[in-house]
Amino acid sequence: MGVLKGACIIGQSGGPTSAINASAYGAIRAALDCAAITKGYGALHGIRGVLDERLIDMGREDPAELALMRHTPSSALGSCRYKLKKLEEDDSDYRRILEVFHRYNVRYFFYNGGNDSMDTCNKISKFLLGHGYECRVMGIPKTIDNDLALTDHCPGYGSAAKYIATSVMEIDRDARVYDTGMVTVIEAMGRNAGWLTASAALASRNGGGADFIYLPEVPFEMDRFLSEVKGRYDEAGKCIAVVSEGIRDGQGRYVAEYAGGKGKDGFGHANLGGLAASLADAVKRETGTKVRGIEFSLLQRCAAHVASKADIDESFMAGERAVECAVEGATDKMVGFKRAGGGEYRCECELFDLKDVANAEKKVPLEWINAAGNGVLKPFLDYAEPLIQGRTELEYEGGLPRFVNLRKVLAKPE
Amino acid sequence: MGVLKGACIIGQSGGPTSAINASAYGAIRAALDCAAITKGYGALHGIRGVLDERLIDMGREDPAELALMRHTPSSALGSCRYKLKKLEEDDSDYRRILEVFHRYNVRYFFYNGGNDSMDTCNKISKFLLGHGYECRVMGIPKTIDNDLALTDHCPGYGSAAKYIATSVMEIDRDARVYDTGMVTVIEAMGRNAGWLTASAALASRNGGGADFIYLPEVPFEMDRFLSEVKGRYDEAGKCIAVVSEGIRDGQGRYVAEYAGGKGKDGFGHANLGGLAASLADAVKRETGTKVRGIEFSLLQRCAAHVASKADIDESFMAGERAVECAVEGATDKMVGFKRAGGGEYRCECELFDLKDVANAEKKVPLEWINAAGNGVLKPFLDYAEPLIQGRTELEYEGGLPRFVNLRKVLAKPE
Repeated sequence: MGVLKGACIIGQSGGPTSAINASAYGAIRAALDCAAITKGYGALHGIRGVLDERLIDMGREDPAELALMRHTPSSALGSCRYKLKKLEEDDSDYRRILEVFHRYNVRYFFYNGGNDSMDTCNKISKFLLGHGYECRVMGIPKTIDNDLALTDHCPGYGSAAKYIATSVMEIDRDARVYDTGMVTVIEAMGRNAGWLTASAALASRNGGGADFIYLPEVPFEMDRFLSEVKGRYDEAGKCIAVVSEGIRDGQGRYVAEYAGGKGKDGFGHANLGGLAASLADAVKRETGTKVRGIEFSLLQRCAAHVASKADIDESFMAGERAVECAVEGATDKMVGFKRAGGGEYRCECELFDLKDVANAEKKVPLEWINAAGNGVLKPFLDYAEPLIQGRTELEYEGGLPRFVNLRKVLAKPE
Repeated sequence: MGVLKGACIIGQSGGPTSAINASAYGAIRAALDCAAITKGYGALHGIRGVLDERLIDMGREDPAELALMRHTPSSALGSCRYKLKKLEEDDSDYRRILEVFHRYNVRYFFYNGGNDSMDTCNKISKFLLGHGYECRVMGIPKTIDNDLALTDHCPGYGSAAKYIATSVMEIDRDARVYDTGMVTVIEAMGRNAGWLTASAALASRNGGGADFIYLPEVPFEMDRFLSEVKGRYDEAGKCIAVVSEGIRDGQGRYVAEYAGGKGKDGFGHANLGGLAASLADAVKRETGTKVRGIEFSLLQRCAAHVASKADIDESFMAGERAVECAVEGATDKMVGFKRAGGGEYRCECELFDLKDVANAEKKVPLEWINAAGNGVLKPFLDYAEPLIQGRTELEYEGGLPRFVNLRKVLAKPE
């Protein structure tokens, strides 16, 4: 296959993470350094930036400032909640994308996001192909939820897991300090997959940590929860339970929704949250003890100051490889990770078909969850531990992190 | 004054911080290394450990493990919510303390805590003096609230301020990422003094950060709050407001109490919290936009992984100086900090009379708050910035902090 010359667009979508900018930076750096890629554009606010022709010229950023993207949380190019219209119902969004790609001679499109973004990628790729427009489309995954299919793990997960495990270790010290009783309920993100919540178990490797961990993979029974927490509290005077926002009862209803539904997001997913406080209240009614509900909220996905070096390095590599593979001819693929065999942990990139990834979800295997359904087993710890290793070389200024400030010079058509 | 020989007791009380163990370790290390001090005891759960004769022999801890206290959050010796009986009503607690001090030949008592602990210290000191028992009593302060009188700042504040400023910087990136509107309300601790909440302003030094900061020093008006937030939201599509848990309305009522009173703690203080969620809901009703309430909860006082090196070093110094000064003859004093004059920040220890510190509160000066009452001015930033400098040398193991595990060998009378 000959070398395809042209510009590239990089966009970011979905909920931000501490590592998504490392991936975007990996792709941008590789694109700017690549002979085949004539221009590197950043789409502001994901696919909206393409539709609105709000593209910035990444080549006009100061290289040293741009390098700060590696350790800057959230999406430096902006994200969007916009969902492309259904192709079979209305192809106007797709035609508009094609028009913009033509105008800027875009021959490479890298989309950095979660599950929904891989689906978007796949649809755009098909549309362009169907219209005879040669363009290599690559998905660069990110999700703290770690729920993408096929890949061993997802960029962004390790940093969120490290934040959660570190925070649970610290809360453990705090919540057990008094000579009086207390029950603490901590809520982690994760709609359908319990990877994030399970990472709290890493806090227990040196003793302490959470007493119980409830994942969405196991139906949640309020009575059993209350009796387990009460039992541990009666025994030890303290109990720490970590729950996933997405726990559901036997009927499949989100427990968080009982507390007062918070509507749905742009993709029709229920907005969850507030669960820690309601479960803590339920425990208070049951035991009469002091309780505290703690929600990690946005912090778990943006706490770049405690990001995992392994995660940041791998996320950068995923972005870089996406560009390299596309230039080598790959298209309609997602860059994922493969855990190399052998004793020592080693992570390599592997390409997966977008269609196999889009809209599939990977959950925590049931055999990694204990029989009581309130904790995880050693295989999970062995899986997750390599992902949280190392501290990053985040720059500090005046005692605080130094995050990127992009110039964002709007590009003009070629 | 001759050298007073005898054992010492170190106890910790009040809400934990990321730096209180650094102080306790400073005192323990100095005591174990000091010829005049024959034994170093740790009281488990503060003054309760004295009353219950649950004293551990600090000399029997492994020195390398003990050194991990410096970077371990919360109180390694345990804290208590126990309030000594009023001396004039019932002196049994005091007589019991004297009895235990006699039994273990305790001639030095170091109490590491907040405002209430300084009061406890002062009362014990007076009682022992009145009973002709020679014992040097020293308070080693800690409080993330930074509200102790006389001292320039309090051990523990810098680390909490660094956590808050860092987190607000990170939330700022996350909360402004989408092309859709959002209002974020963040709640920091601080009943009567706004030092912690004000530290969010440090996040704005490089741009971004919070739009508004509401301290308990200024009466909170809901209508004005809603109109300020709505104004900024209408203008920018986003708004981040940071509020103190202790904001009160013009009638002096805690705004957090409207949301459903949570009772009072052992010292008769109202338990606050849940404010961020209720204010976010109020904003949602007013603007219809997506909102998010975030409560830093326990994390702000136990996030040792992001502690300020300046704070940890100074906290250690305070503990060390307490022992040195007591051995030199000081008693009934609190070790506080003085900011040395001149351009460069330098912090020295200074002794203050316990009676002048106990039950006094230092608030953010009104001249450091802007005229609108929704932000802080440069003098605050200049005051706080030196306190959050530097990263600590926290040990890591398996990607997570390595905190102290004490053997806690119970001591027997001499």
